[in-house]
Amino acid sequence: MKGVLASRAPGVAVVDVTHGIPAQDVRAGALVLRQAAPWFPAGTIHLAVVDPGVGSSRRAIAIETARATFVGPDNGVLTLAAPPAERRRVVELTNDRYLPSVRSHTFHGRDVFAPMAAALALGVETAALGAPVGDPCELELPAARREADGTVVGEVVYVDGFGNLVSNLGPSDFAGHEVSITIGEVPVGSLSTSYASVPPGEPVAVVNSWNLVEIAVRDGSATDALALGLGAPVRVVPS
Amino acid sequence: MKGVLASRAPGVAVVDVTHGIPAQDVRAGALVLRQAAPWFPAGTIHLAVVDPGVGSSRRAIAIETARATFVGPDNGVLTLAAPPAERRRVVELTNDRYLPSVRSHTFHGRDVFAPMAAALALGVETAALGAPVGDPCELELPAARREADGTVVGEVVYVDGFGNLVSNLGPSDFAGHEVSITIGEVPVGSLSTSYASVPPGEPVAVVNSWNLVEIAVRDGSATDALALGLGAPVRVVPS
Amino acid sequence: MKGVLASRAPGVAVVDVTHGIPAQDVRAGALVLRQAAPWFPAGTIHLAVVDPGVGSSRRAIAIETARATFVGPDNGVLTLAAPPAERRRVVELTNDRYLPSVRSHTFHGRDVFAPMAAALALGVETAALGAPVGDPCELELPAARREADGTVVGEVVYVDGFGNLVSNLGPSDFAGHEVSITIGEVPVGSLSTSYASVPPGEPVAVVNSWNLVEIAVRDGSATDALALGLGAPVRVVPS
Repeated sequence: MKGVLASRAPGVAVVDVTHGIPAQDVRAGALVLRQAAPWFPAGTIHLAVVDPGVGSSRRAIAIETARATFVGPDNGVLTLAAPPAERRRVVELTNDRYLPSVRSHTFHGRDVFAPMAAALALGVETAALGAPVGDPCELELPAARREADGTVVGEVVYVDGFGNLVSNLGPSDFAGHEVSITIGEVPVGSLSTSYASVPPGEPVAVVNSWNLVEIAVRDGSATDALALGLGAPVRVVPS
Repeated sequence: MKGVLASRAPGVAVVDVTHGIPAQDVRAGALVLRQAAPWFPAGTIHLAVVDPGVGSSRRAIAIETARATFVGPDNGVLTLAAPPAERRRVVELTNDRYLPSVRSHTFHGRDVFAPMAAALALGVETAALGAPVGDPCELELPAARREADGTVVGEVVYVDGFGNLVSNLGPSDFAGHEVSITIGEVPVGSLSTSYASVPPGEPVAVVNSWNLVEIAVRDGSATDALALGLGAPVRVVPS
Repeated sequence: MKGVLASRAPGVAVVDVTHGIPAQDVRAGALVLRQAAPWFPAGTIHLAVVDPGVGSSRRAIAIETARATFVGPDNGVLTLAAPPAERRRVVELTNDRYLPSVRSHTFHGRDVFAPMAAALALGVETAALGAPVGDPCELELPAARREADGTVVGEVVYVDGFGNLVSNLGPSDFAGHEVSITIGEVPVGSLSTSYASVPPGEPVAVVNSWNLVEIAVRDGSATDALALGLGAPVRVVPS
């Protein structure tokens, strides 16, 4: 992919955000892209490939917003970063003019997405890359559930490279810091302001840099120490 | 190495292809370089270091082709990407003029290959870097074997980051798609056009983006699921 | 972080040295930074984040030397690369003018260090970023110990990506090559000039590219093969 970009769009800056998304984890890719994209300059072309369906009938798409353009497979990896209300245009990436004549069935990153991203970087309009798409695949995050006593129940939706457990719950799901948090069967107390608020080896809940409730273990890996991962229930109880 | 390149060849674009080659796996490095190099612009200088023999009597070389120049240890890591018929010049990298005066015995990437690649990037001729080499170390891939009934037998020569098992067999080794494929003792049926042609968890054979027969497990890791790796026999039986 | 740098300091070259420092291992980060920094051009801004104390009272600092400026947490990760004798200025990174108005408690890489590094890259003076710091946290490496018979005893302070075991002992700690080396209970003989000086699978001691005694296993991983890691004693006995 880097070679295709260097050949087709010489001089264009290419920035690696991550090569650490777990294999086939479309949701992890979507979450990381949603968090990273706003920090890049306006006009950035974001290329994201988590693509277990490569070569099948899944479409290749581009989504244009007021701020950026997103290129990748139509499996939801792009849609958290470019939600419906922000979309100006969604197209299927089919215009042969911008694609190599021979394309593999297993590596559209190289043979479809990089060439199309290069075309965009050279100034080609999104609309020129293919026909409009009205129904891109939307990635749905699990919804938080509210119980009668005010407890909010969510779940772990992402495990980062440190083993921190990131939930789908944010400050807007509950009021203030006067809460008591449990992950699985493990109580982690109230929200802390930093990982270092607890002794080494202890679990701690923080609102992280994605503005989501995250359970960490100080100086360790929460996923290893607590033996919990994706889907583990997270309960925020008002106190 | 990045610091040496930035210091000696300021402004030259440096592109990371991979830092994921398994330690000491010269053949994996050679295969990845062979696949990646053609996608880069003409004139690219490819620097590849998989170098278990660093500091021994193995030579440091550069190989120039019509399209690119390859820099690295003389252990075969460069020779698949720059096969004999394409070579215009092979030299040993010995000219002190382009090397630091103090060099370690354990990190020629920093002390030999990066300085020499920087010299090439600044326009120094390959011939100026050292004396011609007539017998670079050639890396031999195992040959496919043809049995009396037309069966072609190869083996796994590379395991990628997804756990896909890549063989040394390509479409030219057999006729068409009417084949039946086995890896180890595991039948994987005929060639499919994509990973998604089988249900999740099932093995699947495809012709991959390197134009080689690859055995994957949908949404999983074939090397883990099948407990097979480098050297596992791959049989393509005409049907 | 890459997005913040691209937005705030467009066109400035950003070079990744490593994303492979073990989680929370401040000393590993400090050692790698000490080795890498001198190879970069004068004027480079080095941004290093190994930051288990993010969000606590630990300070954010910049250290300016005659050759470079170092930006990161005040936990010692910068101080081996910028030792006291080389420091021209140390400041706490507090000037709001160069920071985003909203900052997370868990990702100062994005919210403090990248913005401050961008300011430096745009030409802002170190002194403008905050008040002087007189007592940055110094990272102390364990000292070598000399026994009555001339034996020098150190320990493993870093394990690299190949599993090589790097000690805190250098050639200046003992005289010449006429020594006999032991790691843990394993004798590794005298110093060799390259990994390839011993048969595959055998342990070997070399002076590595950091000018430190390193114990490797040829074509393998010393930490796995010898079941030794950080803190393992290394003895250099005159012979």
